[in-house]
Amino acid sequence: MTHEIAVIPGDGIGQEVTPAAIEVLEALDIDFEFVEADAGDAVKEATGEALPEETYELAASADATLFGAAGETAADVILPLRDAVGSFVNIRPAKAYPGIDAVRPETDLVFLRENTEGVYSGHEDRLTDDVSTLTRVVTESASRELAEFACDYVDTDDHDGFTIVHKANVMRETDGLFRDTVAEVADEHGVETDEVLMDAFATHVCLDPEQFDVVVCPNLAGDVLSDLAAGLVGGLGLLPSANVGTERALFEPVHGTAPDIAGEGVANPAAAIISAAMMVEYLGYDEAADAINEAVEATLEEGPRTADLGGDASTADVTDAIVDRL
Amino acid sequence: MTHEIAVIPGDGIGQEVTPAAIEVLEALDIDFEFVEADAGDAVKEATGEALPEETYELAASADATLFGAAGETAADVILPLRDAVGSFVNIRPAKAYPGIDAVRPETDLVFLRENTEGVYSGHEDRLTDDVSTLTRVVTESASRELAEFACDYVDTDDHDGFTIVHKANVMRETDGLFRDTVAEVADEHGVETDEVLMDAFATHVCLDPEQFDVVVCPNLAGDVLSDLAAGLVGGLGLLPSANVGTERALFEPVHGTAPDIAGEGVANPAAAIISAAMMVEYLGYDEAADAINEAVEATLEEGPRTADLGGDASTADVTDAIVDRL
Ligand SMILES: CC(C)[C@H](C(=O)O)[C@@H](O)C(=O)O
Ligand SMILES: CC(C)[C@H](C(=O)O)[C@@H](O)C(=O)O
Repeated sequence: MTHEIAVIPGDGIGQEVTPAAIEVLEALDIDFEFVEADAGDAVKEATGEALPEETYELAASADATLFGAAGETAADVILPLRDAVGSFVNIRPAKAYPGIDAVRPETDLVFLRENTEGVYSGHEDRLTDDVSTLTRVVTESASRELAEFACDYVDTDDHDGFTIVHKANVMRETDGLFRDTVAEVADEHGVETDEVLMDAFATHVCLDPEQFDVVVCPNLAGDVLSDLAAGLVGGLGLLPSANVGTERALFEPVHGTAPDIAGEGVANPAAAIISAAMMVEYLGYDEAADAINEAVEATLEEGPRTADLGGDASTADVTDAIVDRL
Repeated sequence: MTHEIAVIPGDGIGQEVTPAAIEVLEALDIDFEFVEADAGDAVKEATGEALPEETYELAASADATLFGAAGETAADVILPLRDAVGSFVNIRPAKAYPGIDAVRPETDLVFLRENTEGVYSGHEDRLTDDVSTLTRVVTESASRELAEFACDYVDTDDHDGFTIVHKANVMRETDGLFRDTVAEVADEHGVETDEVLMDAFATHVCLDPEQFDVVVCPNLAGDVLSDLAAGLVGGLGLLPSANVGTERALFEPVHGTAPDIAGEGVANPAAAIISAAMMVEYLGYDEAADAINEAVEATLEEGPRTADLGGDASTADVTDAIVDRL
């Protein structure tokens, strides 16, 4: 069976780490057909559009999409692409790796972030010269779909339940609906949950990250708190993510375009490669996914390493080392 | 001149740390008249109302208010009290103290949090069984008032400008209005600013807190990011805050009611006492405020210390030590 993979490198180091991920995928015994497409600042400059219609259509029809990074146009690219693949959950693992400097080396979290609504589906208005509004939307159906996914996830991946993070003491109706729906679905599935306010979570995850494991939260909370966790494990450089829908999914490193080093061939390809491993697992090849993850971990621990991790290896050196370890 | 101070201890350790703060204030050569009032879970249980009308009225007419903590009813108490004093800015310093265990001992930040709108003034609706909405409000006038305060603050307190934190790449109209207004006011005052997205701030403040100093942000961003900073300096136990309006202000420790230790006389009074120092400064007694802060810092460094800081002193021991050092 051939898997059609949309490949959207985007801008900056997206152009370097995405080919590195493809190189790793090509070393596997899986039949991929890679189809490349443009998105981001460069194509906007050339054509006026950050996300060309063909790119959207490709992501909407391919079995899976690998995305690199986009610059100024990031929101114009990634939000429609999440929609193109029908993604309702953004999976963001944040774990510290042995041998890598981290503020909190004991961090090992997975965020399951609602990926369609909250302020992201917000309708904005400028009511008067003085007053602007954004209508934040929370639905029972989206909360339920996320919760069903979360229950499955903790079952399959062998976690003891999950933590619901929200701000329902202020957003009583909307985050209240989110919290109640997620808790109810978990209850139906016999999955244990606890709940923490998002501000309290921010404090406690710094003080003692080990008390948390799987975190289920609304869209903006997931955005900010997963980036906080990235800070605890040593930066965005190693974090992968998956935007999963019912029929297809999009995989992307959490980092951006890194304009300071773009074009020099020294970007760390690890996050893009771990994102590719998430894709391989999503497509059903668990062993191949494990093999990639183990090769990346061994390379992070033993080298070679790129400059962000204190080494002086190139993107190609690290990619080759990972391929060699497969 | 007599200053009328509303004193609202609230629930849990609020009942212990607020009297400790009063004891310190009574040791100063300033003429205070303290008027106590109820709010919180206990008064709700007794009367059905978490915030009795007299308490609201007292806070709305006193020169300043000292608040302790409230339990389950926190939002029903603190949000109306912020309104009672007409507060438009919540000042939240988050700094690590010498001798106190901190994830990031180099942290020294001040958050100036918008204190009236965003999702906090949000109007919520349940449109259908499935759909709930919250209308988030951002006005130019509130953004401008906060920005004018921030410009004054960095001038008086000798900071090199401030950082605007927002999520205007997603909330384009509302956070866009916030960002543009704050930047424009700063420009009019010749105050330097830079800006960071709130998710990126969460990463970078963990990795390198020293790159930030004064942070100006919308209401919910300030809530979450200041609690994150609390995590970096070792917990909420030492963080004071001030809710400042044009005519009056309310001062409160950032911590909660600590039900696990409430009633035992072992709560750390430091945050309540530093909040009282902020009040003393607000009322114009800079030297007295400095004296309190120095006495607290010396006590944190040399002891006695409460259990949360690894000591075994009581609230009274610590309070006495601070008074002795004044
Ligand atoms: C680029 C931006 C719109 C996006 C988001 O807020 O979701 C990014 O921060 C992310 O988390 O992938
Ligand atoms: C109790 C709650 C409403 C409050 C807030 O969100 O502002 C608290 O978290 C705070 O930051 O003082």
